[in-house]
Amino acid sequence: MNINRLIDLAIKNIKPQLVFKNAKIVNVFSHEIISGDLAVDEGIIVGIGNYDGEKNIEIDGKFIVPGLIDSHLHIESAMVTPQEFAKAVVPRGTTTIIADPHEIANVCGLEGIEYMLKSSEKLPLDVYFMLPSCVPATNFENSGAILKSQELEKYVNHPRILGLGEMMNYPGVIYKDEEVIKKINMAHENSKIIDGHGPNMKNEELNAYIISGVATEHECSTVDEMIDRIRLGMYVMIREGSAARNLETLIRGVNNFNYQRCLFCTDDRHPKDILSSGHIDNNVRLAIKNGLDPITAIQIATINSSNCYNLKNVGAIALGYKADLLIIDNLKDFNIEEVYKDGELVGKNKEALFKTKELYMPNVLETVKIGEIKKEDLSIKLKEDIVNVIRLLPHNLITEKVSRKVDTENNEFKYNEKLDILKLVVVERHKSTGNIGLGLVENFNLKNGAIASTIAHDSHNIIAVGDNDEDILKVIEKVKNIGGGIAIASKNQILDSLSLPIGGIVSDKSIEYVNDKLEKMLDIAYNKLNVSQEIDPFMTLSFLALPVIPQIKLTDKGLFDVIKFDFIEI
Amino acid sequence: MNINRLIDLAIKNIKPQLVFKNAKIVNVFSHEIISGDLAVDEGIIVGIGNYDGEKNIEIDGKFIVPGLIDSHLHIESAMVTPQEFAKAVVPRGTTTIIADPHEIANVCGLEGIEYMLKSSEKLPLDVYFMLPSCVPATNFENSGAILKSQELEKYVNHPRILGLGEMMNYPGVIYKDEEVIKKINMAHENSKIIDGHGPNMKNEELNAYIISGVATEHECSTVDEMIDRIRLGMYVMIREGSAARNLETLIRGVNNFNYQRCLFCTDDRHPKDILSSGHIDNNVRLAIKNGLDPITAIQIATINSSNCYNLKNVGAIALGYKADLLIIDNLKDFNIEEVYKDGELVGKNKEALFKTKELYMPNVLETVKIGEIKKEDLSIKLKEDIVNVIRLLPHNLITEKVSRKVDTENNEFKYNEKLDILKLVVVERHKSTGNIGLGLVENFNLKNGAIASTIAHDSHNIIAVGDNDEDILKVIEKVKNIGGGIAIASKNQILDSLSLPIGGIVSDKSIEYVNDKLEKMLDIAYNKLNVSQEIDPFMTLSFLALPVIPQIKLTDKGLFDVIKFDFIEI
Repeated sequence: MNINRLIDLAIKNIKPQLVFKNAKIVNVFSHEIISGDLAVDEGIIVGIGNYDGEKNIEIDGKFIVPGLIDSHLHIESAMVTPQEFAKAVVPRGTTTIIADPHEIANVCGLEGIEYMLKSSEKLPLDVYFMLPSCVPATNFENSGAILKSQELEKYVNHPRILGLGEMMNYPGVIYKDEEVIKKINMAHENSKIIDGHGPNMKNEELNAYIISGVATEHECSTVDEMIDRIRLGMYVMIREGSAARNLETLIRGVNNFNYQRCLFCTDDRHPKDILSSGHIDNNVRLAIKNGLDPITAIQIATINSSNCYNLKNVGAIALGYKADLLIIDNLKDFNIEEVYKDGELVGKNKEALFKTKELYMPNVLETVKIGEIKKEDLSIKLKEDIVNVIRLLPHNLITEKVSRKVDTENNEFKYNEKLDILKLVVVERHKSTGNIGLGLVENFNLKNGAIASTIAHDSHNIIAVGDNDEDILKVIEKVKNIGGGIAIASKNQILDSLSLPIGGIVSDKSIEYVNDKLEKMLDIAYNKLNVSQEIDPFMTLSFLALPVIPQIKLTDKGLFDVIKFDFIEI
Repeated sequence: MNINRLIDLAIKNIKPQLVFKNAKIVNVFSHEIISGDLAVDEGIIVGIGNYDGEKNIEIDGKFIVPGLIDSHLHIESAMVTPQEFAKAVVPRGTTTIIADPHEIANVCGLEGIEYMLKSSEKLPLDVYFMLPSCVPATNFENSGAILKSQELEKYVNHPRILGLGEMMNYPGVIYKDEEVIKKINMAHENSKIIDGHGPNMKNEELNAYIISGVATEHECSTVDEMIDRIRLGMYVMIREGSAARNLETLIRGVNNFNYQRCLFCTDDRHPKDILSSGHIDNNVRLAIKNGLDPITAIQIATINSSNCYNLKNVGAIALGYKADLLIIDNLKDFNIEEVYKDGELVGKNKEALFKTKELYMPNVLETVKIGEIKKEDLSIKLKEDIVNVIRLLPHNLITEKVSRKVDTENNEFKYNEKLDILKLVVVERHKSTGNIGLGLVENFNLKNGAIASTIAHDSHNIIAVGDNDEDILKVIEKVKNIGGGIAIASKNQILDSLSLPIGGIVSDKSIEYVNDKLEKMLDIAYNKLNVSQEIDPFMTLSFLALPVIPQIKLTDKGLFDVIKFDFIEI
């Protein structure tokens, strides 16, 4: 934008395109509500005070709030493309996001990052990215890619790359893993921000993690953890995702002096939660409901993220700032009536008013590469009938390692319908290595069928569970044939499936389609396959191959004891 | 610094060089006082908590505060070199400054900036600069240089240049002066900050000024002005200088929500005030005395400036930050006992514990270039005996334009000892143009002598006042011969002089020397030349040639009516 024109607009030599008349403007610098007109031209705020425009919109005392910022999320968790994600979250008030394409990068490497960058261009949503720092997430599994610092460096100065994504390999930091330190140095050398992921760290270990340059944390689950990190100079993201919901706990630790070091994020938010409760607007509402001053909540949702990530002219209603504006009727309910992005009306009553052009890139499609799997490949050979079993805990990502006595036949595991112990299978699907990890799981409660999914953090191999090998083979075959996704079978028949052709983790359909399909398939899982109502079978499967969450998990390389930090026999 | 080593230090694999034991650490992120040890190694804070070092210093419950930041100042106002300035302010707690070399640039152009950069290297004071935006300050005077955007651009990416200095040509901004807009665009294109100087602006004019990109303001003299600017997104500097003292007024407008947008600055602070009351430590003390919470005052003096100017790892006591530390015994009195810069003890009880190497650059010396001036050059020809006179107002930079009847002889002004109307002379001294501006001044009250100075904002021509031409010629000759400075004469004898060989505005001696000399010369002015005790004659002279402050001033081009914004006849 031309400075001369901006000056002419601000000083009223030229009429601005659009003026909101008689607004109550939430001022995140002075923590006040200012009554007046708000002038906008070519997507920029050009006047606050007393203005008339080519077009005037009578706001009649409604509130104008800056567009909301999600400071940390994985778009892939919503299982839709950046375009469809924008259609879901923009009408709910989110106008800027800082995403870590960690999931797609674990499948597709740099081409996954390239896809996310390309497909988030020209949206009415400013999409910034952090470079995934941990691809693969661990050495205990086969992922689709290995991204070292030299690969990441190719993208580090892209205008929408803000830094290095959550450094979840925190032991690698404090034990100075060479490649981890290289990535950190690469971020510093390019003056980029490093996001953290260091739950439960404290004292000297936390000091060491922070001194390496890690600047943010979104894994706090207690007020003490949060306060510790704010004291040490971190920005703390208060997360309200689908699996992890920390807001109601953490908000109790926010006060008038430390709130400026707090941000909001969603991290992983599933279609259902976005559609039913919202996105960052949900964080704001929940914070207000829990007693936080609404202007403070808005500041946390806007200018604080802008300050943390040094975003320019975003996160406030001020001269020269982007006209990313929300119209709401009252601060308490925080119901967003309209959303303007760069001065354009793009959302109304939670409906997107814009269209996007889908972009497919062949390199993120057809990512399920496995050979033929035969029944004997699923055979679990046992030396004795007392075995290690993964025990699910309701509503928890943590599993328990338990010993159980099982039936055997010819020294092979044999399912017993009186025991709730099912076969769990992880099939490497990126390089056709033929790797298959086999384990047993308790408390899933599934009967007469099988479920498979290619969403399995963080390497996203195929994970399947079932009470009989035929159905397990059937669902694996199905997810392969649909290019990745989720499938349910019973009695050798596919009951339903959701195709996720982009990397095997993202749909090419709308978020409403994905949500409806998941609801239907959940219903089938609960009602036809008898899955325990205490668990979400798809989410549960998606975390059972993640060898960093205690106590026991299964990867394509075998059964992994997270406490021993090594593979074990069944 | 090596990340691996930092991690080893933080996690206690290596002993840090220095640990302050049992400190009360002022935490500017959480607004708290944290008890614990503070570990430092190679100038970096490497541990907070429980540490032991190669050397341990028992702090015994004293407070450790981050080094203070002066967010806007002209070093030249202290009349000493950057080295001597550091010796004065560092032991008083200032460890980072953001200076605008506006004065020396008006004399020496880019070579003045180069001199300031070079002579501020390797000091125990981090000296950042803003590029002077207004050289010359106006078109109504001859300065030593003209700096257009293309000249400034040569320095814009110097690692210690943060942006464009105070844009005092605010009419030039709102009327879109081509060269002004070029400079602003140059700053934007290089992602640099633009400092403001726009007193009394409001409404649409203020909007226009801010939308051009001006980000800070240090000229607020009322709470309303301050609040207006904070609302519009500016950082506001609360100034406590020598001439302009705004702190006690503005501090009343600071609250728990807007303080994060406030900084402290001194702008222009003279040797006497630095030595007697301090520097930014004085702002902090005065703020506390006026009821501001001490931690808030410290935040305004530290982290807020760091945030505003995007300084890295400065302004807080946190992991990986510079070990710029002040040891104080209590927060109320804020007496700084010791100052550590980059982990080294550099000041104790207001005494500098470091030496500096003086650097002279020929291009900033011998800047007083004038031809021979004869008595007839000082003759004020009058058509009538009613004339325009500059009337001084006590303790005020503003002058009054008054009409007075004076004595004449052969149509020339003739001094009458019963009237306090003196001859004022401004001699162009940069290019030997021979330009001499002549005027008359009331309320100076000087008798039997003359004073001349080469400190005359902003072009720093020679300005002289006297009751007889012989003494005026004498003092002009003297300041020429000493390479610039201040001189006093009486009855054709020089009584005393202060040499300011660097640009005619900066001494090559210590601040104590300059202060002693000025005190002596003030005493002479008051007691031997009978100068009015209501004015500081040197400071008064230094502002009498500044044609932007109402109502009437004198430049080398003649008598200037600031209200009419044009030259007038005597």
